[in-house]
Amino acid sequence: MLTLQTPLASKLSAFVALSAPDLEMLARFHRRRRTFQAGHELIHEGEKNQSAFVLAEGWACSYKLLPDGERQIVDFQIPGDFLGLRSILFRTSDHSVEAVTRIEASEVLASDILDSFAHAPRLATAVLWAASRDEAMVVEHLVNLGRRPAEIRTAHFLLELGARLRLVGVGEAAGFECPLTQYHLADVLGLSAVHVNRVLRQLREDGLVTFQKGRVDFDDIPRLTRLAGFDPEYLDQPRPFLP
Amino acid sequence: MLTLQTPLASKLSAFVALSAPDLEMLARFHRRRRTFQAGHELIHEGEKNQSAFVLAEGWACSYKLLPDGERQIVDFQIPGDFLGLRSILFRTSDHSVEAVTRIEASEVLASDILDSFAHAPRLATAVLWAASRDEAMVVEHLVNLGRRPAEIRTAHFLLELGARLRLVGVGEAAGFECPLTQYHLADVLGLSAVHVNRVLRQLREDGLVTFQKGRVDFDDIPRLTRLAGFDPEYLDQPRPFLP
Repeated sequence: MLTLQTPLASKLSAFVALSAPDLEMLARFHRRRRTFQAGHELIHEGEKNQSAFVLAEGWACSYKLLPDGERQIVDFQIPGDFLGLRSILFRTSDHSVEAVTRIEASEVLASDILDSFAHAPRLATAVLWAASRDEAMVVEHLVNLGRRPAEIRTAHFLLELGARLRLVGVGEAAGFECPLTQYHLADVLGLSAVHVNRVLRQLREDGLVTFQKGRVDFDDIPRLTRLAGFDPEYLDQPRPFLP
Repeated sequence: MLTLQTPLASKLSAFVALSAPDLEMLARFHRRRRTFQAGHELIHEGEKNQSAFVLAEGWACSYKLLPDGERQIVDFQIPGDFLGLRSILFRTSDHSVEAVTRIEASEVLASDILDSFAHAPRLATAVLWAASRDEAMVVEHLVNLGRRPAEIRTAHFLLELGARLRLVGVGEAAGFECPLTQYHLADVLGLSAVHVNRVLRQLREDGLVTFQKGRVDFDDIPRLTRLAGFDPEYLDQPRPFLP
């Protein structure tokens, strides 16, 4: 018996009202469920014939390594997100994906994607929407690195994480459990760990947000949102696009 | 009579061997062809119910404006690229698109996308591939801003542009006509125009690449590729994924 109510189904439902056959087709993405320990690299940059996964539980991160050994984290993945969707379309993966915590993820083959597109075109548009949303997040991280000062960049990133988590039913408006270290934040924000530490202290002392002991608490959401210029429109839909 | 051989069809053919019905469905994306002058803003960040376009001729750029008036260019679009595909899926556009040169572009409605997905699922996977490829380019620009020094960043960006253009039959391996100004380069590379000028002079004096008088000439492709760590794998396919 396959579960139809998965985080991926919740997320895609923000875009498309999924019919019973759509949900059954989507449930097939969850057939090959596996567990990976924290630190396990699921997808390897530069390798061919990689699988993609749908994350069901835990946190992962996608990144690229530079020739000098430095790492740029592109994004973190939370339940309901695809891991390495590009890898199965590109033959050679252009990035790596690592488990941040112990995770549960289901392997998705290219044939699963093709079958679902052939039988459920509404699901195809929903997957295109999810991929576009991933791209929108990368664009925000690009703007973070290119044009936003360290404090605003950090605030924007934490608000985005909170909004994403709520959409799949994790955390509350006031905050969320967060397994990321200051090294993770440094590698996604293009800052040194020392700089991240200083920025987090400043944000806490300003009464805006507290990141401590594995939890992010938003202390003043309106002021933090204004500081970050954060508009969650790219993450959510006020109502499904396809009713 | 619709033309079946468009730059978009050439690009997607790298991923999927398109059948005659696929090509006819794709040709419908080109029905509403329009001309826009250089500098015209086709898609406006923050506005609802925007159209998407397929670029047939000329260059465009997608960008986000920051509250302080600074601009981060996300990417440039060349013939065969979608403009604002995310805008029609997100209701509210998360970015703006402007014509860099005089352009010809065809308006694509959400219903065109949905119809094509319902009737040509192979085309749906090809559009997902094209969107994934756009995302891969944004990821490269993210890594550029986050971890690559100015000279390597510029070299990587120019090699990427050259490879993209060749895939749609523009330019040669040795170089290409380029309408971008140093201000465009500054806004995509997160550098000042003065810094871009200095970097371009250095790359030219090192015998690597010359960007002058609206042309980019690769003077030493192997050495430039090594310097940039450029691997065009994310832009092209050695053979179609779906034969």
